Amino acid sequence: MFRPEIKVLDCTIRDGGLMNKWQFEDKFVKAIFDACCAAGIDYMEVGYKSSESAFSREENGVWKFCHDSDIIRVLGEDCAEKGIKLAAMGDIGRIEYDDIPPKDESVITLIRVACYIHQIDKGIALVEHCIDKGYETTIQLMAVSKAMERDIDEALDDVAKSRLPVLYVVDSFGAMYCEQVERLAKKYIAALPGKTIGFHGHNNQQLAFANTIEAIIHGCNYVDGTMYGIGRGAGNCPLELLISFLKNPKFDPRPVYEAVQKQMIPLREKIEWGFHIPYLITGMLNEHPRSAMTFMDEPVRGDFADFYDQIADATTLE
Amino acid sequence: MFRPEIKVLDCTIRDGGLMNKWQFEDKFVKAIFDACCAAGIDYMEVGYKSSESAFSREENGVWKFCHDSDIIRVLGEDCAEKGIKLAAMGDIGRIEYDDIPPKDESVITLIRVACYIHQIDKGIALVEHCIDKGYETTIQLMAVSKAMERDIDEALDDVAKSRLPVLYVVDSFGAMYCEQVERLAKKYIAALPGKTIGFHGHNNQQLAFANTIEAIIHGCNYVDGTMYGIGRGAGNCPLELLISFLKNPKFDPRPVYEAVQKQMIPLREKIEWGFHIPYLITGMLNEHPRSAMTFMDEPVRGDFADFYDQIADATTLE
Repeated sequence: MFRPEIKVLDCTIRDGGLMNKWQFEDKFVKAIFDACCAAGIDYMEVGYKSSESAFSREENGVWKFCHDSDIIRVLGEDCAEKGIKLAAMGDIGRIEYDDIPPKDESVITLIRVACYIHQIDKGIALVEHCIDKGYETTIQLMAVSKAMERDIDEALDDVAKSRLPVLYVVDSFGAMYCEQVERLAKKYIAALPGKTIGFHGHNNQQLAFANTIEAIIHGCNYVDGTMYGIGRGAGNCPLELLISFLKNPKFDPRPVYEAVQKQMIPLREKIEWGFHIPYLITGMLNEHPRSAMTFMDEPVRGDFADFYDQIADATTLE
Repeated sequence: MFRPEIKVLDCTIRDGGLMNKWQFEDKFVKAIFDACCAAGIDYMEVGYKSSESAFSREENGVWKFCHDSDIIRVLGEDCAEKGIKLAAMGDIGRIEYDDIPPKDESVITLIRVACYIHQIDKGIALVEHCIDKGYETTIQLMAVSKAMERDIDEALDDVAKSRLPVLYVVDSFGAMYCEQVERLAKKYIAALPGKTIGFHGHNNQQLAFANTIEAIIHGCNYVDGTMYGIGRGAGNCPLELLISFLKNPKFDPRPVYEAVQKQMIPLREKIEWGFHIPYLITGMLNEHPRSAMTFMDEPVRGDFADFYDQIADATTLE
């Protein structure tokens, strides 16, 4: 598959940091950056832009805040001139407008705004603010697998009237099969002429890569991946698969294979992510993975079958 | 997805045994059998029917030969009366007609014949022989991702004229994306009116489950899975995903979750299978996984990126 419009975004540090509170060694982050540059990746999302008032500096690493001084210290003075664009995510409710400097004072190019469907107007307002400050923007409309169709339609109407250039289909819970991805991709594209649609998957059912292919087939042009699939719970679409699939001549999978071998496999010895039965269960039941993450963190793990009953019961009304 | 015609076949022991020469403990095989029965799985493939002259008894466990005496000893006298049908695979060139007893002397119900496209006539002949002996039959037409279209057409013509009831689309190298699965499923179905089409995937690119869904959507009614995805190299479609996806009321995923937890995860500590970069590389390059398996078996593993160059070069003509 080769379509020049396709942009690949690596979110290894941002989404992976959900598993270790962004406590990455500097040299690890630099190695991932270097690999992304060498592989021809379009964007690297280095973390979150967050309010200092919302999160503790002691508990969270620097990539929870993404100050330019930290980015430059770790990635180098010339990190904005390597051909790759840096991105950071802002979560509605956890970021203030003042946390975002004007673009000409930052090495970040793209601000990705994450919001739930009831926050879409706040999301659009933040996007417009970032555009006025000089940034590229996207919105990640989260947990859409639990949203009602009427609310999705209304959100798309609002987005259509805004200056937002890129809206993502996000499978927050790893609950979607290819049919759902196809339907939402077509729906977003039809509702938003002139705008670009992206896809961000989760791997609860080993479908993150397959769903990303499905999204590409149906016209999504921004796609996310992480090295060795690191990310919350079951993780994300493995970048090594995505980059091997895309035939865009600018991509080279070798630096990604090397970073997986030298950085990710050793890290995987220290922190656990990826496919596991509890994540499958929350995914198939279209539930947030937090109960599965709690289950996985127990010193002695309970029975998978009991966990299934517990989650299935919890989704059943009295 | 619920379609009453869909039959699920567990090949945990047969395909998984490729990783340990079928050296499974008896109680392990019995536990997998009990879980399949309790989960409502339609068929369990317990191993290969092979000629004693072709393989050593010392090197290979009993499931390489599948004598009825061994099956009954491990699974119980009443193993043919549990509602699940037992299956065994025969590889063309590694089995003699005399290795197959008449059906009324065996607890096996289904013989699955595996052959390459140049062996299709031998495969059909063995199938006809098995039908005459009283068995259900299928053919697994292997490595079709490397076959020329003209040869596939001719094989399908031969199959159409035979009594074979079920032909499988087999992604031996884990090389297929959803488009290839869709195309082959539609092609087989169109060429074989009145016959049933199956799908057997491999997980080199984390697409075994996704491709199995794709095959089901396009009309395949026999689908294979293994517990925790055990199988040669990157392994197969994980049965726990497949059985969670299918909404056929007779299936219960709990016994599969339990078997994964109590049998498969401990086994995974002893033998290694599943997604790994070298399998991705042979899969994306549509090559047999044997070079990746050799790479994985080295005491000190080489560089993934070098392995990619080596395999990519080997597929390039001088």
